[in-house]
Amino acid sequence: MLTFIGLGLYDERSITVEGQEALRAADAAYAELYTSKLVGADIEDVAAYHDIDIEVRDRAGVEQHPGEILDGAEDQDVAFLTPGDTMISTTHVDLRLRADERGIDTRVIHGTTAQTATSSLTGLQNYRFGKATTLPFEYAHGGDGVPQSVLDTIADNRDRGLHTVVYLDIKVGRGPDGDDPTHEEYMTADHAARQLAEHLPGTLGVVVARAGSPDPLVTADSLSALADREFGDPLHLLLVPGELHPIEADALRELAGAPRELVEY
Amino acid sequence: MLTFIGLGLYDERSITVEGQEALRAADAAYAELYTSKLVGADIEDVAAYHDIDIEVRDRAGVEQHPGEILDGAEDQDVAFLTPGDTMISTTHVDLRLRADERGIDTRVIHGTTAQTATSSLTGLQNYRFGKATTLPFEYAHGGDGVPQSVLDTIADNRDRGLHTVVYLDIKVGRGPDGDDPTHEEYMTADHAARQLAEHLPGTLGVVVARAGSPDPLVTADSLSALADREFGDPLHLLLVPGELHPIEADALRELAGAPRELVEY
Repeated sequence: MLTFIGLGLYDERSITVEGQEALRAADAAYAELYTSKLVGADIEDVAAYHDIDIEVRDRAGVEQHPGEILDGAEDQDVAFLTPGDTMISTTHVDLRLRADERGIDTRVIHGTTAQTATSSLTGLQNYRFGKATTLPFEYAHGGDGVPQSVLDTIADNRDRGLHTVVYLDIKVGRGPDGDDPTHEEYMTADHAARQLAEHLPGTLGVVVARAGSPDPLVTADSLSALADREFGDPLHLLLVPGELHPIEADALRELAGAPRELVEY
Repeated sequence: MLTFIGLGLYDERSITVEGQEALRAADAAYAELYTSKLVGADIEDVAAYHDIDIEVRDRAGVEQHPGEILDGAEDQDVAFLTPGDTMISTTHVDLRLRADERGIDTRVIHGTTAQTATSSLTGLQNYRFGKATTLPFEYAHGGDGVPQSVLDTIADNRDRGLHTVVYLDIKVGRGPDGDDPTHEEYMTADHAARQLAEHLPGTLGVVVARAGSPDPLVTADSLSALADREFGDPLHLLLVPGELHPIEADALRELAGAPRELVEY
């Protein structure tokens, strides 16, 4: 049995009770930390809290060499851990399909994600979000500034009155000069706002920092104003709202400090 | 302090460890069960498991008469519980804003949601979903068949290659004849597929039933074929995929039994 378990958003206590029970009962546990990160805990904290050894696998160790994980799951209970929800990345879907092909039972235990936390923390309604997008580091997409596809997604959503989640790039194990096991870089929301403000300076943006932590920060202002602030430790993400319903406008003003003139409806 | 806690998707163990600790430490706990439902547990099970009294509030008891909840939160730790993630509904945002106005500290502890579970269980990638929609019971929208807005959302997403989550209507405490405290009705996916198949008969649909439970069901077929099946206990939801990437097509074929001709890419 191979059980995919989402660790949730923040630390060793962000896992569900069901996930905790499955993790503690596993014969072996692996984790990947290259698609996201638990900001409030090292993997050693997670292992100690749940009293189990956890072996961290890099991208190559999951995608190209999953043999050991799958061999173990043939006759033992193996847990595969991911920050946030599991199976969000194609990496994990691929691993699940490989297990399935070998006749290994799989199970998914969900975790909390930035996607839903974003909606919860900002008061923006989940059914009013359009397609999400990711803003890559300049060196990662090989160009200057914001890729046209990111601007197109935001514009396309805004044309429909919809909000856009802009996930911010994460680079772990690979930096500007290629593979680098020590590289760990998380795009900050001020950096992202600065890039987007070149195209949409007066547009309202909302920063969500450390979603799922005990002290998440939610701040709304124009993208050009957000570009000049700092938001502390990662992870950050940036929203570009579309049309606001009255209660969404109230929430951004009351809970995120949005200037009144930017959230009129 | 008013702490909003998401109970997660399925039963008393779907809450996060952090949520469990906050719930157990609370002086009083309230729950609403009209926006969603824990399918695998009654609220009594939740109360017993976490060893705390929980008072269930109906919609009026939250929206029109939140006074007692807020009074308690002035000087005690009050927990407000919701299935799934918390704050997804405007109901909760409104309650949080009222607390904020009264100077009461609020905190959000996230839960797992159908939105992310859907992506995880089907292998469909979360950044390839467009706007979500909800299919209402015919009696609830006062017309026959599918509201045009639902068809428009699906068509608009498909034009852009995006997947659509179709949430299925829930009616608790209010039925075809108006207010009814005993009424509890959850739209099934075959009912929804039958309605949509009148407009999109050969289109691929994906049913997700009991997301978050130990035995979730994921089935992909044409909407007209899904209309003739049964999917067991609630909650159900229905997806209408847009364009499929190769790994998404593989996942729907291998994990959801999609007919090969419907998932070509």
